Amino acid sequence: MDTTTKICAGDVRTASRLIRDLEDKLPQARPRLKNLFVHTGKSFIVGITGSPGAGKSTLTDALIAEFRKHDKTVGVLAVDPTSPFTGGAILGDRVRMLRHAEDDGVFVRSLATRGALGGLSQAAGDAIHVLEAMGKDVIIVETVGIGQQELDIINHAHSVIVVLVPGMGDEIQTMKAGIMEIADVFAVNKADRPGAKQLQTELAALLSATPLAENGWRPPIVSIGNLYEPEGFAAKTAELARKVLEHHDHLIVSGQLAQRMERKALMEVTDALKTSILEPVLARLIASGELSKMTDRVKNRESDPYTEAEAVAKRFMKSGGL
Amino acid sequence: MDTTTKICAGDVRTASRLIRDLEDKLPQARPRLKNLFVHTGKSFIVGITGSPGAGKSTLTDALIAEFRKHDKTVGVLAVDPTSPFTGGAILGDRVRMLRHAEDDGVFVRSLATRGALGGLSQAAGDAIHVLEAMGKDVIIVETVGIGQQELDIINHAHSVIVVLVPGMGDEIQTMKAGIMEIADVFAVNKADRPGAKQLQTELAALLSATPLAENGWRPPIVSIGNLYEPEGFAAKTAELARKVLEHHDHLIVSGQLAQRMERKALMEVTDALKTSILEPVLARLIASGELSKMTDRVKNRESDPYTEAEAVAKRFMKSGGL
Repeated sequence: MDTTTKICAGDVRTASRLIRDLEDKLPQARPRLKNLFVHTGKSFIVGITGSPGAGKSTLTDALIAEFRKHDKTVGVLAVDPTSPFTGGAILGDRVRMLRHAEDDGVFVRSLATRGALGGLSQAAGDAIHVLEAMGKDVIIVETVGIGQQELDIINHAHSVIVVLVPGMGDEIQTMKAGIMEIADVFAVNKADRPGAKQLQTELAALLSATPLAENGWRPPIVSIGNLYEPEGFAAKTAELARKVLEHHDHLIVSGQLAQRMERKALMEVTDALKTSILEPVLARLIASGELSKMTDRVKNRESDPYTEAEAVAKRFMKSGGL
Repeated sequence: MDTTTKICAGDVRTASRLIRDLEDKLPQARPRLKNLFVHTGKSFIVGITGSPGAGKSTLTDALIAEFRKHDKTVGVLAVDPTSPFTGGAILGDRVRMLRHAEDDGVFVRSLATRGALGGLSQAAGDAIHVLEAMGKDVIIVETVGIGQQELDIINHAHSVIVVLVPGMGDEIQTMKAGIMEIADVFAVNKADRPGAKQLQTELAALLSATPLAENGWRPPIVSIGNLYEPEGFAAKTAELARKVLEHHDHLIVSGQLAQRMERKALMEVTDALKTSILEPVLARLIASGELSKMTDRVKNRESDPYTEAEAVAKRFMKSGGL
């Protein structure tokens, strides 16, 4: 059996290997991904984001269990940006998800690719495609942090959960930084902590002051308490899963799903252009030692970055372009 | 007088206009920046980063006052990533810095450029060059958030302050996400809050368990209490400024400053390559309507992003390249 057939049959080892080969940029990986592409686009992709320590992994774990109760197969992609210096990835409490390891309907992968050239967003998109080809009904994409790159990754999702925790007075400020607009469902986690009530009130006020999205969806707020009070926690995470599935229905009925899929396709094309055009140029400049000569000239103020880059562009680009 | 002469003489209006023109990508802006370049590279660049709501703007404001006491002129660049949807920037409590508005030795600018093509890091680098050409002794670069892109921006700095606040139990986890390695000085802010002692202890333990950087610098931890208890606050922010200046001396003595300037030059060259090579291609594809046709084909699974991008690369790139 070829790679495509195996992955479409749900073969975990083949899928894992392809995701790793894509991350490592092995030459055989991309043609394989291209072959898979026609089998993608049918999964419901749920993004989950929020500050580090907000409890995203715990909620992801609970959501897996809930979606399984709805008889949906689940893929999880946890995106851990590699430290820019040590190259090490964080696993955090992601090990918790191991309890699903015996369940054939669940497939969890971590991604730790470096962020060069916006490559993390592309690597996430690639891995999501593999999970889609495996036929997972729901794919949860979990990101660490809330910077621009995490926003790019979350753009791969059809529906986005933003997780907030009480305790930081200026939490609402965070949301203004681009988070507010991307949330389809809010989860106020650790809602047994002081400040939870205030956070919910502020959030609800902010939401009611915001004009409804053009599709008429008002993001619901689900408050989730203590993991160690299992009954309340389970009921609340069940509610969270239900709200996400309701949002999915709403996306379909309102025609927004098609729009979001178009936005996603545009992003994938742009990411691929970055790779196809820039990477070969950089590879050439590195191999020939030119990149370090350019850097030296800039460092010594004998030249400036733009003059250097424009000379390279002239050399590598066709003047006409068509 | 031409732009270069005016900016080098510290003219605030000319500098502000050039920074804005660079953000807006006006055609005359880049040649002007190129002319300035030879006058850059002499400032000490301090990055300040940490979670939203950690109090970075308040500390920046206090640091301005401290550096002024050391008779240093100060430039501040506050990087507010624009919301990806509304296009609006956050000003937050940055207005506080207005108290320095009457001081000729201080120049504060906000930057709100979108993050496309890693443009935010480049826009920050451009603005820093303008502040350098103005002759500012110290330039403080403040970022919102702690994602990959913020790390890229902070790479423009010679010395980095990471601001932490107690109250999030998993704060230490944050630091593993690439923050630990970039910190030259830690500020534990809002240290009058519960959990501050624990955060300091954990941080100190983590630091002593980490091998010393090759340059022999052990990042100090400065705990800063309540803004509304002015005496203690002022003493602590004075200590923070002192530690940053000590780090600067250490960078010079250890030869690390030259290394960091080389890393910075490499990043600037790579950013400029992205702009010079990718932007014209994207502009062409958008103008001709091809980008939306490519997107449609990908959305409808008639093609995949890589096949589309490779065809574009073939068309725009010289096959030889030399």
